[in-house]
Formats: sequence, C-alpha cells, structure tokens
Amino acid sequence: MNRTMTRRRARAAKPKRQPIDSFKFPRFTQPATFFRTPLQQEAAGLDIALVGVPFDFNTNRCGTRFGPAQVREMSRLIRRFNATGDPSPFDLCEIADIGDTPVNPLNIDESVGLIAEFFDGLRRAKVRPVSIGGDHGVSYPVWKGIVKGEPLGVVHFDAHPDTYHAFWGSLYNQGTLLKRGVEENLIDPRRVVSVGFRGTRFALDDRKYNLDTGMRVIIMDEYEKLGRDKVIAEMRRVIGSRPTYVTFDIDGLDPAYCIGTGAPEPGGLMMRDVQMMLRGLSGLNIVGGDVCEVSPPLDPSGHTALNAANIMFEILCLTAAARAAAR
Amino acid sequence: MNRTMTRRRARAAKPKRQPIDSFKFPRFTQPATFFRTPLQQEAAGLDIALVGVPFDFNTNRCGTRFGPAQVREMSRLIRRFNATGDPSPFDLCEIADIGDTPVNPLNIDESVGLIAEFFDGLRRAKVRPVSIGGDHGVSYPVWKGIVKGEPLGVVHFDAHPDTYHAFWGSLYNQGTLLKRGVEENLIDPRRVVSVGFRGTRFALDDRKYNLDTGMRVIIMDEYEKLGRDKVIAEMRRVIGSRPTYVTFDIDGLDPAYCIGTGAPEPGGLMMRDVQMMLRGLSGLNIVGGDVCEVSPPLDPSGHTALNAANIMFEILCLTAAARAAAR
Amino acid sequence: MNRTMTRRRARAAKPKRQPIDSFKFPRFTQPATFFRTPLQQEAAGLDIALVGVPFDFNTNRCGTRFGPAQVREMSRLIRRFNATGDPSPFDLCEIADIGDTPVNPLNIDESVGLIAEFFDGLRRAKVRPVSIGGDHGVSYPVWKGIVKGEPLGVVHFDAHPDTYHAFWGSLYNQGTLLKRGVEENLIDPRRVVSVGFRGTRFALDDRKYNLDTGMRVIIMDEYEKLGRDKVIAEMRRVIGSRPTYVTFDIDGLDPAYCIGTGAPEPGGLMMRDVQMMLRGLSGLNIVGGDVCEVSPPLDPSGHTALNAANIMFEILCLTAAARAAAR
Amino acid sequence: MNRTMTRRRARAAKPKRQPIDSFKFPRFTQPATFFRTPLQQEAAGLDIALVGVPFDFNTNRCGTRFGPAQVREMSRLIRRFNATGDPSPFDLCEIADIGDTPVNPLNIDESVGLIAEFFDGLRRAKVRPVSIGGDHGVSYPVWKGIVKGEPLGVVHFDAHPDTYHAFWGSLYNQGTLLKRGVEENLIDPRRVVSVGFRGTRFALDDRKYNLDTGMRVIIMDEYEKLGRDKVIAEMRRVIGSRPTYVTFDIDGLDPAYCIGTGAPEPGGLMMRDVQMMLRGLSGLNIVGGDVCEVSPPLDPSGHTALNAANIMFEILCLTAAARAAAR
Amino acid sequence: MNRTMTRRRARAAKPKRQPIDSFKFPRFTQPATFFRTPLQQEAAGLDIALVGVPFDFNTNRCGTRFGPAQVREMSRLIRRFNATGDPSPFDLCEIADIGDTPVNPLNIDESVGLIAEFFDGLRRAKVRPVSIGGDHGVSYPVWKGIVKGEPLGVVHFDAHPDTYHAFWGSLYNQGTLLKRGVEENLIDPRRVVSVGFRGTRFALDDRKYNLDTGMRVIIMDEYEKLGRDKVIAEMRRVIGSRPTYVTFDIDGLDPAYCIGTGAPEPGGLMMRDVQMMLRGLSGLNIVGGDVCEVSPPLDPSGHTALNAANIMFEILCLTAAARAAAR
Amino acid sequence: MNRTMTRRRARAAKPKRQPIDSFKFPRFTQPATFFRTPLQQEAAGLDIALVGVPFDFNTNRCGTRFGPAQVREMSRLIRRFNATGDPSPFDLCEIADIGDTPVNPLNIDESVGLIAEFFDGLRRAKVRPVSIGGDHGVSYPVWKGIVKGEPLGVVHFDAHPDTYHAFWGSLYNQGTLLKRGVEENLIDPRRVVSVGFRGTRFALDDRKYNLDTGMRVIIMDEYEKLGRDKVIAEMRRVIGSRPTYVTFDIDGLDPAYCIGTGAPEPGGLMMRDVQMMLRGLSGLNIVGGDVCEVSPPLDPSGHTALNAANIMFEILCLTAAARAAAR
Repeated sequence: MNRTMTRRRARAAKPKRQPIDSFKFPRFTQPATFFRTPLQQEAAGLDIALVGVPFDFNTNRCGTRFGPAQVREMSRLIRRFNATGDPSPFDLCEIADIGDTPVNPLNIDESVGLIAEFFDGLRRAKVRPVSIGGDHGVSYPVWKGIVKGEPLGVVHFDAHPDTYHAFWGSLYNQGTLLKRGVEENLIDPRRVVSVGFRGTRFALDDRKYNLDTGMRVIIMDEYEKLGRDKVIAEMRRVIGSRPTYVTFDIDGLDPAYCIGTGAPEPGGLMMRDVQMMLRGLSGLNIVGGDVCEVSPPLDPSGHTALNAANIMFEILCLTAAARAAAR
Repeated sequence: MNRTMTRRRARAAKPKRQPIDSFKFPRFTQPATFFRTPLQQEAAGLDIALVGVPFDFNTNRCGTRFGPAQVREMSRLIRRFNATGDPSPFDLCEIADIGDTPVNPLNIDESVGLIAEFFDGLRRAKVRPVSIGGDHGVSYPVWKGIVKGEPLGVVHFDAHPDTYHAFWGSLYNQGTLLKRGVEENLIDPRRVVSVGFRGTRFALDDRKYNLDTGMRVIIMDEYEKLGRDKVIAEMRRVIGSRPTYVTFDIDGLDPAYCIGTGAPEPGGLMMRDVQMMLRGLSGLNIVGGDVCEVSPPLDPSGHTALNAANIMFEILCLTAAARAAAR
Repeated sequence: MNRTMTRRRARAAKPKRQPIDSFKFPRFTQPATFFRTPLQQEAAGLDIALVGVPFDFNTNRCGTRFGPAQVREMSRLIRRFNATGDPSPFDLCEIADIGDTPVNPLNIDESVGLIAEFFDGLRRAKVRPVSIGGDHGVSYPVWKGIVKGEPLGVVHFDAHPDTYHAFWGSLYNQGTLLKRGVEENLIDPRRVVSVGFRGTRFALDDRKYNLDTGMRVIIMDEYEKLGRDKVIAEMRRVIGSRPTYVTFDIDGLDPAYCIGTGAPEPGGLMMRDVQMMLRGLSGLNIVGGDVCEVSPPLDPSGHTALNAANIMFEILCLTAAARAAAR
Repeated sequence: MNRTMTRRRARAAKPKRQPIDSFKFPRFTQPATFFRTPLQQEAAGLDIALVGVPFDFNTNRCGTRFGPAQVREMSRLIRRFNATGDPSPFDLCEIADIGDTPVNPLNIDESVGLIAEFFDGLRRAKVRPVSIGGDHGVSYPVWKGIVKGEPLGVVHFDAHPDTYHAFWGSLYNQGTLLKRGVEENLIDPRRVVSVGFRGTRFALDDRKYNLDTGMRVIIMDEYEKLGRDKVIAEMRRVIGSRPTYVTFDIDGLDPAYCIGTGAPEPGGLMMRDVQMMLRGLSGLNIVGGDVCEVSPPLDPSGHTALNAANIMFEILCLTAAARAAAR
Repeated sequence: MNRTMTRRRARAAKPKRQPIDSFKFPRFTQPATFFRTPLQQEAAGLDIALVGVPFDFNTNRCGTRFGPAQVREMSRLIRRFNATGDPSPFDLCEIADIGDTPVNPLNIDESVGLIAEFFDGLRRAKVRPVSIGGDHGVSYPVWKGIVKGEPLGVVHFDAHPDTYHAFWGSLYNQGTLLKRGVEENLIDPRRVVSVGFRGTRFALDDRKYNLDTGMRVIIMDEYEKLGRDKVIAEMRRVIGSRPTYVTFDIDGLDPAYCIGTGAPEPGGLMMRDVQMMLRGLSGLNIVGGDVCEVSPPLDPSGHTALNAANIMFEILCLTAAARAAAR
Repeated sequence: MNRTMTRRRARAAKPKRQPIDSFKFPRFTQPATFFRTPLQQEAAGLDIALVGVPFDFNTNRCGTRFGPAQVREMSRLIRRFNATGDPSPFDLCEIADIGDTPVNPLNIDESVGLIAEFFDGLRRAKVRPVSIGGDHGVSYPVWKGIVKGEPLGVVHFDAHPDTYHAFWGSLYNQGTLLKRGVEENLIDPRRVVSVGFRGTRFALDDRKYNLDTGMRVIIMDEYEKLGRDKVIAEMRRVIGSRPTYVTFDIDGLDPAYCIGTGAPEPGGLMMRDVQMMLRGLSGLNIVGGDVCEVSPPLDPSGHTALNAANIMFEILCLTAAARAAAR
C-alpha cells in the first residue's frame, strides 16, 4: 500500500531544515514564512521549494499579488503533521521558503518570462515546487519552467474552464492557462482532470476546448451525482502513474470558503471534500502544485488564505511523499 | 420536455437590450446596474423589469434599504449564461434595470402604497418583475401591485413563517406578508410551499396559520429527511402549472452564506441546494420573484449580496423561460 | 418518551425570571445579557446560571476574553422557544445572567482558583451552569468548581485532542483540560466522547492519552463514515444516564462557521449537524456546559458569536429539560 | 471659581452607586453598561440617569438604533476621573444606567410619545438625563419630556442646521428637532448656540430659521476664524447661567473621527477641540445632554462609538458638577 | 468680485439635467451615479461630463480600478449646494455622468490610447471633464485627450513628486505623469504648483525634475511654515488666469483621511485644509480635474471614497463656475 | 550643525546589508521583514538590530503579540530615505531584522527574563535595538537588557503615566514600566520627558510618581499651550547629550491614527506632530527605541501599524545618525 511504502522510504535522517519549533517561538512570533520553514535564497540542496508568485494578470478583480504574504501569515497555524497520520513532509524532505519570484507588475509578457525562468532554475536544481499565486495565470509560466520533455498530467480544481484563447488580445491570463499549456505541450490534455466547474458562463461552448482535447471535466452536477469517492477514483484513473501537477484555483471552493477571490461562484466545493480529494491522490506521482486566486484585500479576515494555506499543505504532503517515494 | 420547448420558442431575433459586453467594458467598469443591463426609466417595451425596492419596514435590525445598491454591485460578476446550459435570459426576453421604486422612509403605509402602485404599473405594461428588497415586508405590496384576479402560487424560502398578524400594531412588515397576502386573496395558500423554517420561535403556534390555511411547510428537519430531489418534486406538485411567484428571504440560507441579514438562523440551506431547487422549478409558470433581507452594512464583504445576486439571476432565468414559453 | 416526560414535569407556575419581552423592548434595545435574561449578582433562587468566563490562557492567538460580551450581543436574536417545539427553557427553570467570573488577567493560577471558586458557589447553591469562555482552558476550573464526588461524563466537540500535559511548562491552558480533568478525577474518561478532531498535529501520538484512558474519539473521518445518526447513538451509549457536561470548543465547527477563533481547522462540522447532535442528547442527564474559544476581534461580523450563542442556547435547553426532569 | 465651588459642594459621603472596580473585574468583563455603572430599572434615588434611546427616525442611512449598545461597549474603557483633574462624577452624584427607553420601531409618532413619557418620568423624579441615541430626532422627545416651564438653552454640535420643517411630510426626524423645539417652546432660540455647520446643502436658505429666530450659528469658517477660545467665550455668553442642554450630533466631528454615522461631512471638528469646548462649559447650569447619530454597522471598529462615549462622559461630568453645585 | 460675477452670469434657465430629487427618491435609492446626476452615454449637450477612469497602472498596491464605483456610491450623500453658499453647479451647467472610459486591463499602452481618445471626444464636444481614477497614471492620458494647443497649468495635490522617468521600463504609470505631461507639452511646468509632498523617498534627487523645470513645490514643511492662506495666494500666483487643471492624488491627505490608497504617507493634509485650498481657487480658469488613487478594497468603510467624492464635488464647483463665467 | 556632522561621518562604504530593491522585487513581494531588510538570526556585525517583541502582558485588551507581524507588513511601504533629505539609515549603518525575541505566552516573569536576556545579547554585541512590541510592558525588559551602568534618558510618548506600582499584584505590565525602570536605576527620571498624557484616570494622583521623581511631564494641555516648537526645545533640554531611549506607546496618538490599540484616548497627537517632534530629536544621542501597543486584530486596515512603522522608521533614522556620529 502507498502509505506503507511512503513510510518505509522515509529518510533515515531527519532533514536539517525544520519549521520553527512553536514551543520555542510561539506560532504568532517571527517573520511569516510558509509553514514557518526557513527562508533562504537558493534552491540548491532542497527537495521541495515553497514559492510565492505575486502577480495579477489583472483580468477582472485584482489583489492576488498580495496572496503570498497573507498565505504565509495564515500558514503559521499549520502544525508539522497532517491529520492523516502520515509522516510529516518535514521528515521526508528538505523544504524551505525561497521567497517570491521576480515580477514586473507593469509587463505581463516580461513577467511570464521571469516566472518561467525562476521555475526553470528549480527544475535544473531538481527541486519540486509548491507555490501560491498570484492569479491563475501563473500556472502557465510555472509549467513553462518545470516541463522539459514529457507533458504533465494536471489535477485542476476550478469553477471555470480556463481554456479561453485570449482576453482583450492577451494570451496570458487567468482564463487561458490550460489552452496555452496544451498548445505548448506542457500538459497532456488526456491526463487533465478538472473538478468544480459551475459558474455562470460567457458562452455555451466555453468548455468545448476542454472536451475536444480529451480533458476529463467533472462539473458540480456530476460531482454530486458520482459522489466524492467515485470522483477520487476517476481522478486517479485519468492521472495514472505519470508525473502530475495539482493546480487549485481557490474559486473551486464555494464562496463561503473563499470570499477573498476575484470570481467567486456560489455552489462550489467544501473544504472537507477538498481535503479528502487531495488526500485521495496519495501515492500518485505528484511533482508539485499551486494554489491561486487568493485576494487578501477582499477578505481581511484571512479565511480564504487559511483555506489556501491548508490546501497548499495538502499539496506539499503529496509532493513530499512522492519525492520520498522516488528515492 | 420543458427545456426543449423553451429553446424552440426562443425569439427569432436577439433582444435589443443586452448587458454591457465585458470585453468592451470590463466587469468592474461602468455604473452598477443589475447584471449590467441597461438602465431605463420606463417599463414599456420590456418583458422583464429588474427593480430595487429599498425599504426597511424596520422590525428589528435595519439596513436592507441598501440591498439594491450592493446587489447591483455584486451582480457585475454574473455572466450572461446560467451554468445549466440553458439559453441566456437575455436571448429570450427584453430585460432592463428600471431603477428603484419610490419610498417614503418615514411612512410605512405610504410606502406600501408607492410600491404597490409601481408594480401595478408593471402589471399594466405586461412586464414581469424580478426585484430585490428591502426587507421581506416588500413582497406584500409587490403582490398587491401585480395581482388582479387569480391569486398567485408562491415558492417561499425562509427561516421564519411570515404569518404573524402584526408587530407592534403594524400590519405591514417582514413577519406578516404571507398572512396579508392570503387575507387579501393575492396568494393562494394551497399553492404556497415554504422551505427552510428552523429559527428559534416567539411562540409554539407560530406556524399554525400556515398549516391551517393549507400551505405546504417543509421545515429543515423534513427537508433533510426527504432529500433535495423529493423536496423539488413536492414543490412542483404544490405549485402546479398556474402562475407562481418566487420569494426568497436570504435568511433561508445558513448564516455562513448570509451573515448580512437581520435575523440569521444557523442550520439553514446551502447555496448549492438553493441553486438546484430553483433550477428544479424549470418549466413552471413563474411570473416573477424577489430576494429580500440583504443588509449590506452587516456584510461589507459582499458575500451575502453575491449570493443574493446569483439567486436573483436564477429567478430571472426561470421568469424569462416562462415568459418566452408563454409567447 | 423523553419529551413527553419533560413536558409533563414542566413547572405548574411559569418561572418569574423571563427574557425581556421583545414586543415591549425590541431585540436591539436594552443592555445585552444572555438571551435577554435578567442580570443579577446572586445565584440563589436560580435553577440555571448563565455565566461569562472572560479569560485567555493565552497559548496562541488571544481575544477570547471578549467572548462573553459579543455572545451576549448576538444572543439578543434568539427567541424563547427552540425550533424543536419543546417547552421553552424559560418555562421550565429560573434562569438568569449572573455576569462574569472574576479573573486576574495577569495570573493564570490565581484565575484558575477564582473561576473554580465561583463555580463552587453555584454548586453549593444547587445551580447548574451554562457558560461561555474564554478559551478552552476554562472548562477545567469549571469542573473543579462543580464536581465534588462522582466525576462527570463529557460530550466534547473540538478539532483538537486537549490532552497535552503542559504547554511551556504551564499545566492549565486550552490544550490540557481533558488530561487535568481525568488526573483530578473530575471527569470519567470512559464517559468522555469527543467529536470533530481533524486539525494538523504537533505529534502523531497526540491522541494517545485520549485512547489510553478509554475516551471515545470520533474523528471527522469516522464521523463521516458513521453518519450523524449513528454518531448520536454512540454519544448516547458512551454517556449513559449519569451526570454529563457538554463542552463545545467553537473550533469543532468548520472555519466557515467560526473564523473568529484562535486555531481554526478547515474540514469541520456544520451548524446543522451540531444542532442535530446536541438535540440528539435530549433526555440525558445534562448538568451544564460551556462554549469556548470565541475570539471577537477575529470576527467583527459576529458570525462566530452568533453560532456560539445558538449552541449555548441548545445546551441551555438540554440543561433546563434535565433540571426540570430531575424535580 | 467654578471648580473650587464644585469641589467644595461635593457630597460628604461617596455616592453608593459606583462603576465596577476594574481591579476586581477587569474592564473587558461583565455585561456592558454605561461607564460600568450599575444597571437598574428605576430612576428613583438617582441624581443622573444614563439612558439609551435606540430609535432611527430613518431619514437616510439607518443603524443608530444600535448606538446605545456599542457605546455601552466602548464606554468600558473610560476610567472614573476626567483628565481635567476635577472630582469624578461618581463622587458627586448617584449615577446609574437605567437601560433604554421603549420604542415602537414601526411607528414614529408613538415612539416620540414613548420617549417623551420616559423622560417625563425622569423629570418628575428630579433626575437629570444623559443619553445616547438613536438619530438626532430623539432630542425633541427628550426635551418634550424634561421641559415643563422655562425653555432650555442648547449647545448644539452638528454639521447640519436641524431646522427643516418636515421631511416627506413627517414632522419628527433628524432634521427638524430645533424647529420643533422652538415651536413648542421647549428651547429658547436666543440661548441656542450651534457649532460645526459645514455640510453640503439642500437649499441656500437652510440656515434661515436658525438665524431668524436668533440662534447663534458658528459655522466651521467662523469657528476657524475666531479660534477655539473665543468660540468658548461666545458659547458661554449665549448660554448664560440658565438651564442648558448639550446635544451632540456625532457628525459635528470630521468623518476621520466618526465614519459610523449617517451623514458624514468632511472638514469638521477634531476630538481635541470638542473636548476643550465641552470642558469650556464648566460651571454652567447643564441639566443634561445627549449624543446622537452613532451608527455601529457603519463602523465595526468602534472608533465612532469610542468618541461618542468620551463625549458622553464629558457631558456627564458637566451635568454632575452642575447637579452638585445646585445642592 | 468673482462670486458676484459668477452669480450674475448664471444661466437664465435652470439646466435641464438635475440630480435625482432626494425628496422623491431618498439618497440611498436608485443606481449610483456621480452626485445622483443622470447617466447618459453621449457627451453632446453637456457643459461638464463626470467620468470614471477605472484603470490600475499597477505599480504597487492595486485596486483603484474600483474607485469610480465606490465614489459613485459615496457621492449619494452630497447635496446640490456647496457649503460656501455659491450657486449650485447644477444651476450653472448641464452636467451628467457619462460612465467610464473603456480600458484594456491587460494592456497599459492600449489603455492610455483608449482613455486619451475618450477625453479627446470630450474636447471636441467642448465638454469639460471632472473624473475619478484609477491610479494617478490616468491624468496623463486625460491631458493627452483634452490638450491641443496651450499647455495647461496644474494644481497638483500629492504626497509624491510624480516625475520619475519610468518604473520597470514603463513610461506610463502613477509615478511619471508630470514628467510625461511636460515632455509632451501638455502641461506648463512654470504653471504647475504641487502641495503635500512628504513621503519617504526612493532617492534624494526625486524632486529634481520638478524644480529644474520650474514647478512650484510646496512640501508639507513649507505648507506648515507659510500657513494655508499664503499657500492659497501662492497657488493663485503660480496659476494665474490661464486654463488650469486640478489633479488630486488622494494620498495628499493624511492616511487618517485616506487609508484606502496604495501609498499612504503619514503627516499629510486634512480635509478641512483641502476644502479651503480648493475653494481658494475660486475665480480661476479651471477647465477640469480629477481625483485619483482611491482603492476601495483597502477601505471598505468608504471613508476614503467619501472624501474623494467631496473633493470631486469641490472641483466640479470650480469647473462649473469657470465654465459659466466663460459664457 | 548636527546634520552636517552626520553627513560628514557617513561611512565611506555603503553598508552591505540593504533593503530589497523594489525595482527588482516590487514592495508587495517577498516575505515581510522590517523595511525589507535582510532577515538574519545573529546580531554580530550589525550596528542596529530591528526586533519584534511579541508579548501581551495582558492588562486589558490583548492583541499586541501580533504587532511585529503587521508592522513588518506595513513597513514594506517605506522607502530608503526619510522625507527630511538626511542620509538613509541604510547608508549609515549595518541594519537587519533579527526576528522576534523568545517569549513564554503563559508566563510573564519568564518572558521578562527571556526578553531581557535577548537584549542583553545585543548590548554585548554592541548593537543598538529598535523594536516593536508587544504591549508597553516590554520596554522594561528591554532596558534591563541594554542598561549596564549609566541609566538612560527616555523620551516617552504616551496617553498614560506608566508609573503604577502593580496591577493585580503583578509588577510587570503596560502600566508600571517607568516606575520599574527608575527603581532599578535603568532610567534616570530627571532625564525622562513624557508627552501626550490625557486619558481618563484611575486616580487623581496617578501622575504623582512621575512628578515626584522629577520627570518632565507635558500633558496635552501644556503641549497645546507651548506649541510644538517649544515642546521640542523642552525635550532637548531635558534629555541633553547623554544616551537616550525613545519609547512610543502608539496611544500617544489620537485614536484617529491608532484605533488598533488597547487603550485609545481621544484628543491625542497627530502623526504630523509626532514626525516633527521625532525629527526634532536629531543630533541627540539616541541609543535605540521602541513602538508599542499596536494591536492588529483591532485594526485590520493596518492604519495603526502603518503609523507605527513610520514612527519606527523615524526612530531608526535617529538611532542610525547617532550611531554614525559616534564613530
């Protein structure tokens, strides 16, 4: 069984990079880094890098550039073990917060380049990335950076299809990432599974590209009809054992869980279901992932960022287990 | 089947009134009107009028007078097609925002008259109304305006029974509407179905009038016991094919979805269920509806208004389909 | 049947202490007391005392000292009858708000003593307590005050196990209460049932003490697997007919229902389920209870306190019915 | 000198009613009453009654009905001595919180009667009132209650002239109080001094009634030209030694100090200046006063209510000193 | 005297476009337009157009794209006459809200073109603009649209010098407008007067371009030293009688008055001073103006937008008087 | 003159530690450290250490433990040069963020020891501290750590006298620091100058200790009477040329500038005045300082923390200039 294997392959020695011990420095102290991990500039020596990608592509409601900062803040609350009882990611891998990617807030194309270059650096250092946007447009340059060769499978949580060709003439933004990824052979559409589509729609053919290219789309109606367990099975079937990336647009959640986002769509997923679906990916070959579309000015309570931090932690657990299993 | 019929009867020509095109003017631009429809003063020429009724009857916690403004703001986010894949209401009917009704904030009786007169004007112009309150007391003058002759069936979402005789000697307010409607033969109690009652109670006989007059009351306990599908079937059975009005007190929702309301009652409906129940009314003869009790000062995040705008959109879709089917 | 018995044993005469009549003084008027009950300094003559315990033990995020004030505010909205249709607690028992316990905000040990002494006074006056914290550390001194003799059964809603030995060398705080209660024979671990554990964890053995001492732990995974009805049956089985206390850490709820708390953990209970579980304890020998961990500065909307006030009302209903049944 | 006299006439014995001792019960504990004074139902035996008047006349932006509750909350922070070094009002007079007046939120005329009757009761009991609204419309029924005979002088802080004849046909509301007071001989216009007018205006003759009846109007321009000291002298000159009432519309302040109000007008007074002007009334025959227009839903931070509580305390100090001097 | 002249030249007939009468439709009703003026698409026939420019150039903290919407909301509170007693702008000129300019949120250069083109249309229609951004970058394309020929004088309120050459290689943004305006001969630096500079600085030569080109810079220190009256005299001296534009970066105010802005700098102007300075420009040849940098997500209370709306109203009064005087 | 000297003594070489360049990484990016300085664990090699002291002594309203985190966030906005035109502190000294001190949130005495020990380490490393609390109780352990020998002069901004002997039997808290400092010979009362006292008072002799020990107390009345320039002169006279510490309780400001604090007192200082007073200390021998009492949960807007960050920057500028001058 996967968990057993994971446990068996856990490192003999505990990784040297550890989150700050909250019994020495309480959780509300010290500058905020992801899960209180060490902050360092270089990726070398890491198994997994935690990264902020503070960029609004700016289609509609802005503010996601502040996402990494608030998610770092809320991630203080997360302890070293997942509720599942699995080994802590911090016992499996060397993990650190390597800060934010550079961006040019006045230039989308340049920012796409900067972000891609940053993640290319991680790829070259053989470090898997778990990141927080930024709006959903950031996933494309992430893929551009980390994929050289076999396109990735993608587990895609979202209220929207993300396969527009362009908005206002611009190819790179929160609505085009899956199309761009397919066109550039960064992701394999037959290994893309999307969960949570439900929003009101610009056009009735807005999911056509997804379906035409063979992506598996589980809209909310089907999610409810199948039930969570069968959805998990279906996700696992589509993804298979090849390298896979998890991208979580926070608007996949119902707005009761993510009011701090640009395009909230009522009738979405609940956190409990999201946790179980992510844990349901255990044992798969997860090479990294991201959470996007957290807009702190729209939710000063930090509830959205709290959920984002917890989702990011689940993705980190998956990635760490996969990384450890690959040793 | 209903949807097929709706599609078949869709207008040959696209209605001339259309929401602002968000690819010309992004969704955050231009003064806020309902769903970005044109703002006009006259109802003539419309199939459906979107109306604000900015009146607090003032029983308890006030602030619903600001409801229309915030719902207009949040309705910017709603796109022209429902997630269902049905034709857009804007392809079926001429629809516009005709502003708010006049009210006298210092005089309840006069306001009841002003609101009723306004909706009477719509009736005479053969325009169906979809409105946003104001507190729930506004439904009564709406009915007073639009009903001349056969009383309406009512689909009533609410945490409370709304059949008090009076509060503090006043006949018109957020707790008396169903009783007033029955007394004046504006609504047919045997064609009223209520969903969501659950709040703490002033008296143990507070649902007696509902039951004595033959209204179908599905309290939360029964909702849960029957399950959503059977509730929908029951709603359809009660309502039948005669003209029906949908009135949605936002406190029918759990406070996790509507903290911005005057009398929030934990343990209520979720948005997903509400969406499915409303869509479950598809094909019925919906002549209009309202959403009430949104109090923006109690929810600056706009979450409550976002949900209200989405519910208003579902009611608009039902009304437009019914209006188109009636051609 | 329990309810019948409760009704039969209801007092001949209506208790003289009643909540303020909202048709004389609307719910938004008059200084806030719990459920608008009379404020009095002495417990003598009461059946049940409503108490605030405004103390932060301060482990992590503070602010629960303001809990009693905001819960009093939000409790204005609660009417005299539960939705269940059972007799009002105010028709069964003499109930009043007796204010807050004294505390020394600069001294944990002294505060433990002051709180215990206050509740000891209630015990001596044969008054059952329903209280609101403060953080969860307050349950221990409450037990210390009210238990002389047979240890209590405990229904424990929480995201966390609460059986640490100490934090930073301090024995009394929000993470140690169950252990302290067992050690001092205030609670009977074989009659403790916990629901809702799910948070990320400091250590993998953090539930060991619970299990070793025979507490029944229903983590979220099991809660979901059993379903609510079987969980209720299991709670009743564990508790039996002996005296039992209900302690509700508000973080048992999902953060969508309790963002105003110190350690919110996504994936938790919903208010509907909580209401049904509490109502499912009907007929048991409930001698009092508390709600803890409401931190108003973290939720100015009052949503968390609204839910806390409703939970406190459910506990009051249980306690009043049990008290009346004991006559 | 006035202060000396006040000190000399201070009661031999300390009044028996005292605010809660914050070294027994910290300021954040116990149910909120004005300045932590005892809550009692009867006025008998008091020198000064602290009263809430929770009524929105509803002209424009509502929410002032919640004013008394939030001001009680914020008044926790106020200690027993004014910064001036004068004797504490609690050493000069018997002072208690006597709760809120009854109101009918659905009936303005009836509420005017209820409020007037309540204050008439205080007059008959020879108790001076210091109250918090509600909107500014409440001052008129207060005067109606407390004046039988010689009309009062009035110190009036406000951004607006308050001398309209009626709004929407209604004589009683936040814009008509001074006119109503003059018409009914409750206040003496030649002993009315207004400070702070500056708002944008409905009509250019909106101050005509004030001037025609001989009120002294110091608009912001003149306030600035004269300087605070001369304004104080002018206030004292106009008022003289006869009985005088202080009414403070919180919108006299700049919105930087009162964003929680219905008609905020930039360019207003600062709290420092307000404190000094109120202290400048020392030694005058102040028979009571009110603070109005605090709308808590528009300022969840409590800043507006904090300022209102401090202003209310200054008025209490003036009233207590005058009451003591009158012994 | 200027005011006399203005009054004399006031139109014989009242303009046909008027704000909504608040005694017919209370101020909280009807969709929000600037000062409740009519909403129309065409500028023809107007003297002054009120315009939203919803564009973030995105240098730093974003959100100003939502400025026009929130300023429209808060402008509901503004009545038709200025406190000064001058004729209402609505009695002097035809004024309407003509909506927002088109923008491409993903393309700065294109947006500069779209905005400039929009304002060029106003120039051709001989309509003077008063607008609200957007961030301060919008002033440049406004000037580009309205200036053909003589460069404008500029009254510039700001905490920052706005004369950078570029940020991140981009010429158009919130820090470069004055430099761009001078380079393209749209504004005359010798007729530019800046008030309020005080922020911390990127470089010690950051005001060099301002001074080298002959702009008159009155930093906060000098403002305080001269006093407001001499500053007004100096502003009038620099501007003289030629056409002049008023641009108000809301961060010219102290953050106590504008927390909803991207680069708040403590130690700034107060609203009272700003009102008096703007009124001090009375009689000058003001051809229009703008308010910028209002970021609603950073100030949900609306305080910043309230101040912005009032400043916009002062600029409107100046522009209307100048327009009327030019007849 | 002092500034000239400061400039002359500026280091030949630029310090190697510099804030993050905002043209490489925009200000909203990267984990938040004070003024975007490097984060490091060791103080060795620094001239000045920026430190968080996240401790609530807990007297009244809590939340200051979150102060360092929010001040770090808001300090992102501060650029490298002060508005004064003086050299940047980052050109004068090696400056870094060395994180937070350890604390035991459950033990005041232990925390006093931990904080004192931490600052003792800085003293031994010859590093001057500029810190942010925590509540005002933290100044005492800071002094305990940094003073060995000559007691410090203190510039003390505060609304309250801070010379109580104890609260609830506890010697260390936000109200006792000056008394403790004098008793232990850590500060020299004849070289203490306090500005801003004005709050309501527990007792009329609450300033007696201050005056008896020779501290110079400038209450708000005197501040206003003298005027800012004379106050500055008086501060300089009292302090003289010996080593001096600046301690700024944020409640010295008017609540319009600091609503996020535990004991806000209306009628206080404005940021402009505070900036000028702090700059007025230029040239004195400032050995460090702190800002205290920022409570983020009470001001989610960050306004209070923005002002605190700016005050901390002024203190940093003073300390850096003094440190450079001492070379």
